[in-house]
Amino acid sequence: MARLLRAATWGLFPWRGYCSQKAKGELCRDFVEALKAVVGGSHVSTATVVREQHGRDESVHRCEPPDAVVWPQNVEQVSRLAALCYRQGVPIIPFGTGTGLEGGVCAVQGGVCINLTHMDRILELNLEDFSVVVEPGVTRKALNLHLRDSGLWFPVDPGADASLCGMAATGASGTNGPSTAPSRDNVLNLEVVLPDQAAATGGLGFWKSAAGYNLTGLFVGSEGTLGLITATTLRLHPVPEAIVAATCAFPSVQAAVDSTVHILQAAVPVARIEFLDEVMMDACNRYSKLNCSVAPTLFLEFHGSQQALEEQLQRTEEIVQQNGASDFSWAKAAEERSQLWTARHNAWYAALAMRPGCKGYSTDVCVPISRLPEILVQTKEDLNASGLTGSIVGHVGDGNFHCILLVNPDDAEELGRVKAFAEQLGRRALALHGTCTGEHGIGLGKRQLLREEVGAVGVETMRQLKAVLDPQGLMNPGKVL
Amino acid sequence: MARLLRAATWGLFPWRGYCSQKAKGELCRDFVEALKAVVGGSHVSTATVVREQHGRDESVHRCEPPDAVVWPQNVEQVSRLAALCYRQGVPIIPFGTGTGLEGGVCAVQGGVCINLTHMDRILELNLEDFSVVVEPGVTRKALNLHLRDSGLWFPVDPGADASLCGMAATGASGTNGPSTAPSRDNVLNLEVVLPDQAAATGGLGFWKSAAGYNLTGLFVGSEGTLGLITATTLRLHPVPEAIVAATCAFPSVQAAVDSTVHILQAAVPVARIEFLDEVMMDACNRYSKLNCSVAPTLFLEFHGSQQALEEQLQRTEEIVQQNGASDFSWAKAAEERSQLWTARHNAWYAALAMRPGCKGYSTDVCVPISRLPEILVQTKEDLNASGLTGSIVGHVGDGNFHCILLVNPDDAEELGRVKAFAEQLGRRALALHGTCTGEHGIGLGKRQLLREEVGAVGVETMRQLKAVLDPQGLMNPGKVL
Repeated sequence: MARLLRAATWGLFPWRGYCSQKAKGELCRDFVEALKAVVGGSHVSTATVVREQHGRDESVHRCEPPDAVVWPQNVEQVSRLAALCYRQGVPIIPFGTGTGLEGGVCAVQGGVCINLTHMDRILELNLEDFSVVVEPGVTRKALNLHLRDSGLWFPVDPGADASLCGMAATGASGTNGPSTAPSRDNVLNLEVVLPDQAAATGGLGFWKSAAGYNLTGLFVGSEGTLGLITATTLRLHPVPEAIVAATCAFPSVQAAVDSTVHILQAAVPVARIEFLDEVMMDACNRYSKLNCSVAPTLFLEFHGSQQALEEQLQRTEEIVQQNGASDFSWAKAAEERSQLWTARHNAWYAALAMRPGCKGYSTDVCVPISRLPEILVQTKEDLNASGLTGSIVGHVGDGNFHCILLVNPDDAEELGRVKAFAEQLGRRALALHGTCTGEHGIGLGKRQLLREEVGAVGVETMRQLKAVLDPQGLMNPGKVL
Repeated sequence: MARLLRAATWGLFPWRGYCSQKAKGELCRDFVEALKAVVGGSHVSTATVVREQHGRDESVHRCEPPDAVVWPQNVEQVSRLAALCYRQGVPIIPFGTGTGLEGGVCAVQGGVCINLTHMDRILELNLEDFSVVVEPGVTRKALNLHLRDSGLWFPVDPGADASLCGMAATGASGTNGPSTAPSRDNVLNLEVVLPDQAAATGGLGFWKSAAGYNLTGLFVGSEGTLGLITATTLRLHPVPEAIVAATCAFPSVQAAVDSTVHILQAAVPVARIEFLDEVMMDACNRYSKLNCSVAPTLFLEFHGSQQALEEQLQRTEEIVQQNGASDFSWAKAAEERSQLWTARHNAWYAALAMRPGCKGYSTDVCVPISRLPEILVQTKEDLNASGLTGSIVGHVGDGNFHCILLVNPDDAEELGRVKAFAEQLGRRALALHGTCTGEHGIGLGKRQLLREEVGAVGVETMRQLKAVLDPQGLMNPGKVL
């Protein structure tokens, strides 16, 4: 059960309403002073360079700087900041590592960016309970570093060293295979500051609950539009005794996807299973100094005991060979493995390197795995037709893939073609009972697709639910809805 | 993304408002005729015996019969029934198999019980996608029978042969171990009829989505208080190549729980791990003709390849023996296994048999596993102090256990002691950062504990969310909130 905290009803402002402004613009000095009074002068900035750093993520969405950036040190300050902004009608944009891909941090209506990275304590580690409670500044890598030698780890891995609360806020998942659930299933609990809501306190830390409505689930993936996540309880997993990675090249996309389905049907507990098309494989070869064959390829990883792994490897090898795999190679040594997955994580940069000076936009559709081959083949045809440069990586185990499109952000015409391509791909996914976003979220760019996916009234229902928690609509406005 | 359907705005009633009644009482003939006009005369009953069959579940909560029972044959009829009731202010109580344990089907304000068991089609089976779409009348066993020889199954097993949509509605889980997630994580999608809401349609069937707020998650565990679930898409799992079960007796509760933690920490993918205290073990020996030692006991089950199982068994045996287990025995043959789990599933009846003529009430607290020994020991002391007859079974892998209390329903004083004991146990769980219900839900009896667990304003937030979907408060009134 999520723990909801009231935004502190904090002393009256002599200038109540005076500073109130929904439109983008400068904040009056009094308001900035009030922010400083909450977090201390050194933790507030209105400098252009700082605001611009906080107005963009890693996507092509144009930078929309907030009017001010504040760094709260604790949940009580977050609560007071939220109350202050809410009372004055100032938009609130939560900010973590800024590694999002859908413009989720763009301050489209200006307002105050609340950078939560100074709250970076690991509040509670319960090894026996396989759980940890972390503040929003704690990143995935920082947590796993802290867990080193504990025998447990947090395996969800979106590539970027994102903050764990940010991953919860976007429902991120990544290269973890179907055997490792995405963030959604590993977020046991949340602490959330609601801007205009009294407090509901709940325990943090148990695995399973059927007590009332699943508020935690409502906040996971809400992209900062419902409240500020100030702590999360995560489920930890035992570190596998042994890990082996593998790559294999296939004659076709179909063969790669068929292998995936057969591996899952054989109940081989594959930990990661990633698809790279030949364009992406070529880019990774160049960027990360690999020499895999330039073909549709699977990167796989297996976790388990030495003995269990031997069996998994053998079964997988049989399956992929039945599907015509070639250049099959295992990476058993840690450094080989890490080279492989570093290459996979750098796929984004490898893609960007294909056209220096360009920015990237990543699509994020997800379809039932049985529909993957047709949509992948169709997507590659659309790519050729569009004249765009694009490469494909996919979390093929769950039907989710990304087409990374390269674009010159100063070329409006090309940007237009990229957006048109992405929308067309989203619609293809919807037609196949898929979704326009498997893990990146809706953010700024997919609001029309969300409407098509859940229907106008589905969006209206979401609006009404948001209105319960954020009646003034000041939490990360312009996103999702 | 849940698919939300409008309750049909169905022809005007000449007697609009005439039949309107929020208090419990007889429905006017016109209204009953209108129900018959929707589903056909043979699918509506106002007979006392039928209404009483639908006014109770398997709990001690007293029978509260609805005013009428209807059996819709399809979602369009459900939608028209909901619209009809809503228009007339008549409470709506969804009914599946009636195997709930918290009085969730009691018609505390009268109204119409919508029995969904005639909608029992398997709408779509996608083996390659590991998913199936079922109507609300399909039960767990019926689905697995249908899946026989498909290589896939639905492993979530609460014991009773509950309907799958009912399991979604209560967030049921059961004896599936931590390696198999509860209903919550296996419900990929829902189709829901909202009584007073226009439609949001979404695709049914993909695994993963980050598109907008998680409406599916909001309905899972909502206990029929938000809408009528008319279909669910479930994630299927490969049938294991081999299954082995085991029992072992321990010198203490602590030793049994320690073994569980060590097994999980060793990443042994245990499929089921159930705790029975010596009282329950004794009852099961008598009722199910087992001859296990009368001691704190674990029932375990392992799934995997023959080779993987050998290793799992060996590791587990080492761990439990380090924790002082005795009478360790494997059940590799199917019939031995099924005898064991039949006994576990019959634990409820075994407990009832300890005091013929009594009814049972099952508590359902869940705590972080590290706190299990202290709460189990304390609970047994409280049992002795209370003079009540009670036995304990637990899904020890996730900190959830049930104390099955026997009570003579005609003995108000004893009933009072049972309720007091259950409340005290719930509060102990909350004090240990646990929850008052791991899988049975809030229903009628735990509303006060829910208030204590999530706080008065948490409940208020839930109320406001409910008001968005059920503004008249006619969906299963008096439950959860």
